[in-house]
Amino acid sequence: MEQTNFTCKSIGIVHTPFKQAEGTPIQPVKGKGVKGWVEIDNAYVDGLKDLDGFERIWLLFWCHRSSEVKLQVKPYMDREIRGLFSTRAPSRPNAIGMSCVKLLSVEGNRLNIEDVDILDGTPLLDIKPYVKKFDHFQVSRCGWTDNAVSEDTQADNRFFQKENQ
Amino acid sequence: MEQTNFTCKSIGIVHTPFKQAEGTPIQPVKGKGVKGWVEIDNAYVDGLKDLDGFERIWLLFWCHRSSEVKLQVKPYMDREIRGLFSTRAPSRPNAIGMSCVKLLSVEGNRLNIEDVDILDGTPLLDIKPYVKKFDHFQVSRCGWTDNAVSEDTQADNRFFQKENQ
Repeated sequence: MEQTNFTCKSIGIVHTPFKQAEGTPIQPVKGKGVKGWVEIDNAYVDGLKDLDGFERIWLLFWCHRSSEVKLQVKPYMDREIRGLFSTRAPSRPNAIGMSCVKLLSVEGNRLNIEDVDILDGTPLLDIKPYVKKFDHFQVSRCGWTDNAVSEDTQADNRFFQKENQ
Repeated sequence: MEQTNFTCKSIGIVHTPFKQAEGTPIQPVKGKGVKGWVEIDNAYVDGLKDLDGFERIWLLFWCHRSSEVKLQVKPYMDREIRGLFSTRAPSRPNAIGMSCVKLLSVEGNRLNIEDVDILDGTPLLDIKPYVKKFDHFQVSRCGWTDNAVSEDTQADNRFFQKENQ
């Protein structure tokens, strides 16, 4: 029998100005200049060596406030119902978020970051360097997003638990 | 008390030609032209709608064969010891891998993919579309990888469990 469940644990916490979904940028490119910081658990600080050489880093995190799974959703940037996996909506079977933020500096267990689209208090799962030769793809088709009708840049509550739940 | 553990579940299985770490490309860009396919659990097929419009997709997966956590590692492309989080090595606190592969076609619950760097039988956690306007960053610094000494393109066993364990 193959293993089908895996336990993720928080390795730190993301601190940002965004206390609720409403008004949170929907992607790092929509949160240009917004600053935040990541507090890494001391147990993992040895793994941060050499990170400061990178201009951007991928943060993988657990969308701890996302709603139940919705396999078809109306994305912020569109008026049509789309398959969940063709969107970045957080109401996913595994609520893993992925944001490529600017790394301003590393101070001990603190990462100062910019271009932030993450809710305050979000548990961090992983950090990976943004490596241009690995992550920079030329593509000619990006599906429905090529013709997205909305210029919305901020989230609302549609994919999140109600406040005070 | 904040929640610090989260349960991920497999939403499918990645099928590839790579039965062991040795010889597996270390990134999609090193596995150009290598084909594979993803078998999505039927429960999630409704979420695949609209995915076929995207030329590339991010696969997030559980590196089920990775070794114990190593916070400092010698990456394939370098001769120095580096902090884990400045590398893509799979021996991570949360063994989540992330690969941007080419999507050739979607047939029911089957995704045909190319540029594959994933071990056969890997449990899939998530699919996200590669959206150029979200994921395509111009950067001038990529840390130690800017001066990486090795042109290695394939993995060996250093970050993986021994075979037959």
